[in-house]
Amino acid sequence: MDEAMLAASEASFTANNLWILIAAVLVFIMHLGFASLESGFVRKKNTVNILFKNSMIIAIGLLTYYLVGFNLMYPDDPISGFFGFDGFGLSMPEGAAGAIEYADGSYTYWTDFIFQAMFAATGATIVSGAVAERMKLGAFLVFTLVFVSLCYPITGMWKWGAGWLDARGFYDFAGSTLVHSVGGWAALACIMVLGARKGKYTSKGIQAIPGHSMPLATVGVFMLWFGWFGFNGGSVLSADPVLVSLVFVTTCLAAAAGAVGAFFTSYAMFKSHDLSMVLNGILGGLVGITAGADLMSPTDAILIGLVAGIIIPLSVVFFDRTLKLDDPVGATSVHLVCGIWGTLAVGIFGDLAGFGQLIEQLIGILAIGAFTFVFAYILITILKSTMGIRVDEEHEVTGLDLSEHDMEAYSEVDKSYSLAID
Amino acid sequence: MDEAMLAASEASFTANNLWILIAAVLVFIMHLGFASLESGFVRKKNTVNILFKNSMIIAIGLLTYYLVGFNLMYPDDPISGFFGFDGFGLSMPEGAAGAIEYADGSYTYWTDFIFQAMFAATGATIVSGAVAERMKLGAFLVFTLVFVSLCYPITGMWKWGAGWLDARGFYDFAGSTLVHSVGGWAALACIMVLGARKGKYTSKGIQAIPGHSMPLATVGVFMLWFGWFGFNGGSVLSADPVLVSLVFVTTCLAAAAGAVGAFFTSYAMFKSHDLSMVLNGILGGLVGITAGADLMSPTDAILIGLVAGIIIPLSVVFFDRTLKLDDPVGATSVHLVCGIWGTLAVGIFGDLAGFGQLIEQLIGILAIGAFTFVFAYILITILKSTMGIRVDEEHEVTGLDLSEHDMEAYSEVDKSYSLAID
Amino acid sequence: MDEAMLAASEASFTANNLWILIAAVLVFIMHLGFASLESGFVRKKNTVNILFKNSMIIAIGLLTYYLVGFNLMYPDDPISGFFGFDGFGLSMPEGAAGAIEYADGSYTYWTDFIFQAMFAATGATIVSGAVAERMKLGAFLVFTLVFVSLCYPITGMWKWGAGWLDARGFYDFAGSTLVHSVGGWAALACIMVLGARKGKYTSKGIQAIPGHSMPLATVGVFMLWFGWFGFNGGSVLSADPVLVSLVFVTTCLAAAAGAVGAFFTSYAMFKSHDLSMVLNGILGGLVGITAGADLMSPTDAILIGLVAGIIIPLSVVFFDRTLKLDDPVGATSVHLVCGIWGTLAVGIFGDLAGFGQLIEQLIGILAIGAFTFVFAYILITILKSTMGIRVDEEHEVTGLDLSEHDMEAYSEVDKSYSLAID
Repeated sequence: MDEAMLAASEASFTANNLWILIAAVLVFIMHLGFASLESGFVRKKNTVNILFKNSMIIAIGLLTYYLVGFNLMYPDDPISGFFGFDGFGLSMPEGAAGAIEYADGSYTYWTDFIFQAMFAATGATIVSGAVAERMKLGAFLVFTLVFVSLCYPITGMWKWGAGWLDARGFYDFAGSTLVHSVGGWAALACIMVLGARKGKYTSKGIQAIPGHSMPLATVGVFMLWFGWFGFNGGSVLSADPVLVSLVFVTTCLAAAAGAVGAFFTSYAMFKSHDLSMVLNGILGGLVGITAGADLMSPTDAILIGLVAGIIIPLSVVFFDRTLKLDDPVGATSVHLVCGIWGTLAVGIFGDLAGFGQLIEQLIGILAIGAFTFVFAYILITILKSTMGIRVDEEHEVTGLDLSEHDMEAYSEVDKSYSLAID
Repeated sequence: MDEAMLAASEASFTANNLWILIAAVLVFIMHLGFASLESGFVRKKNTVNILFKNSMIIAIGLLTYYLVGFNLMYPDDPISGFFGFDGFGLSMPEGAAGAIEYADGSYTYWTDFIFQAMFAATGATIVSGAVAERMKLGAFLVFTLVFVSLCYPITGMWKWGAGWLDARGFYDFAGSTLVHSVGGWAALACIMVLGARKGKYTSKGIQAIPGHSMPLATVGVFMLWFGWFGFNGGSVLSADPVLVSLVFVTTCLAAAAGAVGAFFTSYAMFKSHDLSMVLNGILGGLVGITAGADLMSPTDAILIGLVAGIIIPLSVVFFDRTLKLDDPVGATSVHLVCGIWGTLAVGIFGDLAGFGQLIEQLIGILAIGAFTFVFAYILITILKSTMGIRVDEEHEVTGLDLSEHDMEAYSEVDKSYSLAID
Repeated sequence: MDEAMLAASEASFTANNLWILIAAVLVFIMHLGFASLESGFVRKKNTVNILFKNSMIIAIGLLTYYLVGFNLMYPDDPISGFFGFDGFGLSMPEGAAGAIEYADGSYTYWTDFIFQAMFAATGATIVSGAVAERMKLGAFLVFTLVFVSLCYPITGMWKWGAGWLDARGFYDFAGSTLVHSVGGWAALACIMVLGARKGKYTSKGIQAIPGHSMPLATVGVFMLWFGWFGFNGGSVLSADPVLVSLVFVTTCLAAAAGAVGAFFTSYAMFKSHDLSMVLNGILGGLVGITAGADLMSPTDAILIGLVAGIIIPLSVVFFDRTLKLDDPVGATSVHLVCGIWGTLAVGIFGDLAGFGQLIEQLIGILAIGAFTFVFAYILITILKSTMGIRVDEEHEVTGLDLSEHDMEAYSEVDKSYSLAID
């Protein structure tokens, strides 16, 4: 390669790598999005608990992904495509050249790690909202630790680590199934074992328990959309101008259509303009487009988002009223149901549409869903029978902020003067 | 072109396109900025309403820009520079090569769409704040739909779509007039037809109605400044190092000077350190520099921002006390008045300064202002006489959150236990 | 240079410059992070004051850095490495070519200014939190003005402006000492002269004064982490793929380990899950890794962050109970103590580790610490004896929002109807 050609490929490498790094920054801020959304949707008395959990999840997620996750998810030598492990910690290819040659001239080893690590904790964050207001902090953190270290990387490997689902032709661009449904299945298992919040389902009927701050929830959803530019756009794994820009367009149009779908459906159902439904409609549209954001035309994207938005209020009501499963933030509807829808949509719309593909998508959904649900169910059941997963009834009434954290989210009493006055 | 040259231009294209994409992400988050700012500046009882409107505006804005706006604003064949339309939906030039060759090697077709689409909804967002606390949700959403689909793209085309104002030499780099004044004119028309909030202007005097959350408002302003890096910086339409970095410098110095201008002026006027004035001073500085951010020296930028900051408290008082026009967030002062100031400043400071240019700036301001104001006035008047634009007096007193959305922004009552206890 | 080579270096320059610009945007948003964190950690009645201060700090910081700071910090001709000044305002090298050739093909003159200017105000922001709830606004703004214009650039020059500490071999990659300790030393001097909040230390014991909004504080910490990608990543001063990605990895792992360190230490000390300790642990980890983020392995980074996290609760208790120095947000522990730790860590871990380096690190810490502490102590003492630095006791009880700003952070009374009803 002559000097000019070398300089040109270095420039290209720099630009590609830069985009994946920036995408990692955007995915990082989704953790603030989740923290805000979930804390807005819970009661005041459980707010510190949600914030605490989400602050620890990103810490646990990064550290466990460093320790075992990355090498579990992307092993050099997977055993029949089901499992593999390259050892603890990170082992960068020797020297700068090794890091640069790592990914075929698109990004370095470190870039790959940090981008994937930011994804890893997302699954646990989804669970965090679903089990809010009643789960013991310690048990939740242990659940997160095991789930993010082992469960997420194993099924992640099946597709993104060149495992058996990848070999079959299953397609999941940025993780409608690998990230969102996985989090949703775990959430479902947990809320089944954990039970509903006290006062939610009573002999007198089903009680709506409104969240304590709609501004926080809205900030959360905008932050999540903001981060999704990196989540989907970074999943191109290069700064390819056509592909990344197409992904931006499909992602945004699906989110917009999700809002509109949820707007009309929830108005038809409840005769009111329900902000939480529109917010979840946006998220549903985003989750829905994620599996095929690089395959769709703008019109396909709008249809996928619209259906996801319509699903949201129907699914929320189905979980709440029919199944009587208590999910304070609607995580199962947003991440599990719309994640399944988005994964199926790859077989219905866009470049890969076709019956054969639809079957592959179903196989992927079922295989990953079954593994994750069973893993999470066993894990949470073990935790239940050992350390216990549910806070005392009395603590649930007073709120987890006081019982687990000895502090309030919004301290109003100005204690200092009671002493000062004496 | 030899192989190395081709590789070099691909690298350059990738970097340029990447910047416009990231700029689109930054402009996106301005919608969170507006949502936070406006909800902070209204009363608690109307907070969900503002959040709901701003969530729907971005959805409506993206979808209508996809449907008609983009092809209205950038027609291939404008009729005498006043109007043109290339049909519904998006039609990317054939194949990846077409997308790449689209914009002279700086960005793809999809990139152009998503960047411009993020701008489009901004106009309606400006209106949202001005009409807060008293306008019917349905009427507002219809107004937004029509305004963003038709009015914004038509005047936008006059300059950015190579229309008649562009041919004359009118200059508006990133939209002091095309975006901000346009939103401000529409806001002015709407509040004139809509009338003031109940209790604002009474026989006993003018009542200040303070917003319910200064932290939310402050978060909003910082988010808007954050997004302005993309709004102005992305308007370079490439990642040109000198131009983008100059635009960053002028934008930030104008914002800083706006804060200082508003600080001293409002202190002189009110003898207090008024946070809302300083926040609006920052925004005024940003709006003011927007028309000529690429033409100014740092010193010019500071002067433009300083004047904008001085304008803010004067203009707010003028609208409130002299004209008795009720604008809860100061949108007319920030976006209309400072937008006009910034557009004129192009004829006074910087590379294009001169009497001839000043006249062209005036012509642009008047033409776009007249079209927009008349369009918005007619539209809101039609809505008034058909679906009605004002909520019932009783609903205004109880707040739009309960009457339009059946929910509260900050739910404190823990209803669940009333049932559980039985 | 042939045509292809020229095109390739232009592409490379564009990508490098773009990253420093984006890093500046990320550092900008740290000012929102500080504003949120500090306002969350103070009482409701002093919230507007904190928001106001932080809005003015960024304005003052940018303008003074334009006026004198940049030319003080990076003089062409420093006198013996201690001091130098290139005159007021900015003087870009002539024309576009000059701007491009400015920094060896990595970024333009404007880019350099805006990136460094965003850093400059950070020091004052750190002080803002420490002196919260009792310092006069005017005195604080004057302190900020002088501190940011003179003190920060002078010690900054010693290392980053190629001054005497740089010549000796002192290492501070992104400012554990030059930014964070400097802010921390100034904060320490100010709280020593200012005294504790009324009611904090009484004859009956030490009173905890909890902050009024944990969600705001949490948003602040996530925003700060988000911005730190630019703070540390941009300090590479190019988009070098290996170096920037390594810095991202070490920065994030240190933050995560900081959370874990603070989690366990504070649990051992207080037997509760203290959110504010975990949040400050994250920040401690970030401050700790900042001096050597480009030198460390991931494992080194985890150890550095873990120690920083362990330090946080110990240091907070030491300042509060042993020294009886009242620091409402823990700024001295986070920025001063962890800044010192991070600077020392360069001599203990990573590529430069060694006894000789450790001594150089100590010399840098002591020299910059002594200069800054003395400068700040004299400045605040002068302000105390001239304009006064402490608000009246009565105003401290009612809160600074009413006394200094004549407004409340959360206005709940709907005054408008009292008039309307008549």
